[in-house]
Amino acid sequence: MNSPRRDVAIIGVGITKYGEHWNQGLKHLITEAGVRAIKDARISGSDIELIVGGSMSSGMFVGQEHTGALFADYMGLNPKPAIRTEAACASSSVALRVGCMAIASGMHDCVAVGGAEKMTDVYGSQATTALAGAMDRDNEAYFGLTFPGVYAMMAKRHMHQYGTTREQLSLVAIKNHDNAMHNPCAQYHRKIGLEDVLKSPLVADPLRLLDCSPIADGAACIIIVPADQAKKYTDTPIYIRASAQSSDTLGLYMRKDITTISANIHAARLAFQMANMKPADIDLAEVHDCFTINEIISCEDLGFCKKGAGGKTVEEGETQIGGRIPVNTSGGLKAKGHPVGATGAGQIVELVEQLRGDAGKRQVSGAETGLAHNVGGSGSTVAIHILSRNRGRA
Amino acid sequence: MNSPRRDVAIIGVGITKYGEHWNQGLKHLITEAGVRAIKDARISGSDIELIVGGSMSSGMFVGQEHTGALFADYMGLNPKPAIRTEAACASSSVALRVGCMAIASGMHDCVAVGGAEKMTDVYGSQATTALAGAMDRDNEAYFGLTFPGVYAMMAKRHMHQYGTTREQLSLVAIKNHDNAMHNPCAQYHRKIGLEDVLKSPLVADPLRLLDCSPIADGAACIIIVPADQAKKYTDTPIYIRASAQSSDTLGLYMRKDITTISANIHAARLAFQMANMKPADIDLAEVHDCFTINEIISCEDLGFCKKGAGGKTVEEGETQIGGRIPVNTSGGLKAKGHPVGATGAGQIVELVEQLRGDAGKRQVSGAETGLAHNVGGSGSTVAIHILSRNRGRA
Repeated sequence: MNSPRRDVAIIGVGITKYGEHWNQGLKHLITEAGVRAIKDARISGSDIELIVGGSMSSGMFVGQEHTGALFADYMGLNPKPAIRTEAACASSSVALRVGCMAIASGMHDCVAVGGAEKMTDVYGSQATTALAGAMDRDNEAYFGLTFPGVYAMMAKRHMHQYGTTREQLSLVAIKNHDNAMHNPCAQYHRKIGLEDVLKSPLVADPLRLLDCSPIADGAACIIIVPADQAKKYTDTPIYIRASAQSSDTLGLYMRKDITTISANIHAARLAFQMANMKPADIDLAEVHDCFTINEIISCEDLGFCKKGAGGKTVEEGETQIGGRIPVNTSGGLKAKGHPVGATGAGQIVELVEQLRGDAGKRQVSGAETGLAHNVGGSGSTVAIHILSRNRGRA
Repeated sequence: MNSPRRDVAIIGVGITKYGEHWNQGLKHLITEAGVRAIKDARISGSDIELIVGGSMSSGMFVGQEHTGALFADYMGLNPKPAIRTEAACASSSVALRVGCMAIASGMHDCVAVGGAEKMTDVYGSQATTALAGAMDRDNEAYFGLTFPGVYAMMAKRHMHQYGTTREQLSLVAIKNHDNAMHNPCAQYHRKIGLEDVLKSPLVADPLRLLDCSPIADGAACIIIVPADQAKKYTDTPIYIRASAQSSDTLGLYMRKDITTISANIHAARLAFQMANMKPADIDLAEVHDCFTINEIISCEDLGFCKKGAGGKTVEEGETQIGGRIPVNTSGGLKAKGHPVGATGAGQIVELVEQLRGDAGKRQVSGAETGLAHNVGGSGSTVAIHILSRNRGRA
């Protein structure tokens, strides 16, 4: 991968509350997030030249495909072109990557990137069935494996190999619920303790209900422009210093080692190289905690701690707000919620608010640089973005 | 939309036979097309830096989402990043647009763009139900409208307004079946006559079975590189002179006029502008004939004849091979087949074979420039590519 021919900046963000929206469909959610982003960027809808929207399984969830056009339509943006991207739970990070390409290519000067998912009203199926479309359907899901099962196996092996404890898993959930208390868009505003996690129903041993991110509806949107035009729109543009993505086998059973996600390693290497940074340069990170074990594994893979030390890092408070590397200040997928197609874009919204200094009680003091890490499936897709207040090379 | 910062060329193409593949899944089909494209380009898989794959409704059809990663996985291309695009029946044209952006951005130098759909083995639903996900589910499909119904209304109104005849509709199907006789990858190798169309079962008045493109499995793949590197790989690169896309309302009921597709008009204007060409400069075109009426409407909208004269243009043989503007030399969606996610990429494969002079008995003599027109839904997405043997601006 080479450097893009134009750098990209974020000038506006918008997000809905994550949770159960019984009176709003997919199109209403994306419109709400989109309008907020447009207002935040202080642009007009007519300034937008392209829409790139992520949605994982709108077909299986609500019977609606063609969601790029749907987003353009309901946001009042016809005849502008619209592209839907899908990469399971990484769908809208991939949308952001496509948006960056569209800007860097010189073809477009203002792109709305977003994501949405409507998971509570399921069309002709169950949410777990739809979500299993992110794994290898033929060789895993048909034989009864579900996502909690996939991550449970990863957790079991990580506990066996590195001594990660049940308590350390719980501490990820507790921290993220604590952070969500101060995030207005989070699905849960409820502190939990060690006992709550341990007493919650067992889903797939060792993972309990409070280790799992919830089913949610939600949408998020980001407005991007060429970096050298950003100051025309805002005094506080946030620059995309890296956009990297990597793939691994769809099936977990094909991996050499299930205590690591090899696409994490590859994508992180590319991202740090592109940004000319190292893990220690990152002030805060949104890390894909679809299940508590994934925050532990991925913090290791991203280089925020040594391999195997992820559990201890949480235990020692290093990933709390005020710690060495605050992780999931938004509440993460665990407590902010995980409307899968929106999740990647939602992580970017959190970083932008933090880097602008607008994160209120969950603000990481003096945050200059943030990293968003978004996983599709069990790590078959990993997309990483590094954002900064500082433009870097100009 | 601005000009891209790097022009793009096609150096290899591959396609499967379209039809019923009872022994091949989605992943086998894309792998077959992908390996053919890699061989045709005389590159190694390791040269590919990014995979962009279109698939419309793999979730509803076969329960498998995350098909970008699936394609990378089964083509042996991990850890290369992979993106799935979806825009209903225009999914893989949109993939090509994203591939063009990836090259033009400078971020990637060799991209595999493809599309695949597996429609004959349907998971928990019916093909028509899945396809209806391309229209407005809430306001159209839930009330019983299907795609033949949508295009039947367009046909009725076109016949009323412009005097288009039942016979002219039939002539589209007859021409495309004639062309498919010489296309080894076509689903049907069967000539049909006027009587066959008229005697075929009525699907949605006035459209009969032989007005409708069939359900099919299939895949197609294209290898693209920066135009200024193309001659390193091949003596006959085909240049992408324009890549344009436009949107319209998802619901047909929202349109001012249903005898035209406004996204056709917008996308065509952009495409001809980008290529610095006019309709008369096009030597052959693949036009989205999901139903016979669409070839007639879209030929008008693309400027190949006057508005309302589409029926007459077919009747007078102008769109036959040897005519003024040969349309659907491949057999079109009607007779080559319409595995929806593959269709756009498959149109490009046809144009490349024609422009290389490799189209055998269906060769358009001296073809220099071709246009591919791909529609999603009832025209909510339209993507147009113009290809040429000639690089144009350098």
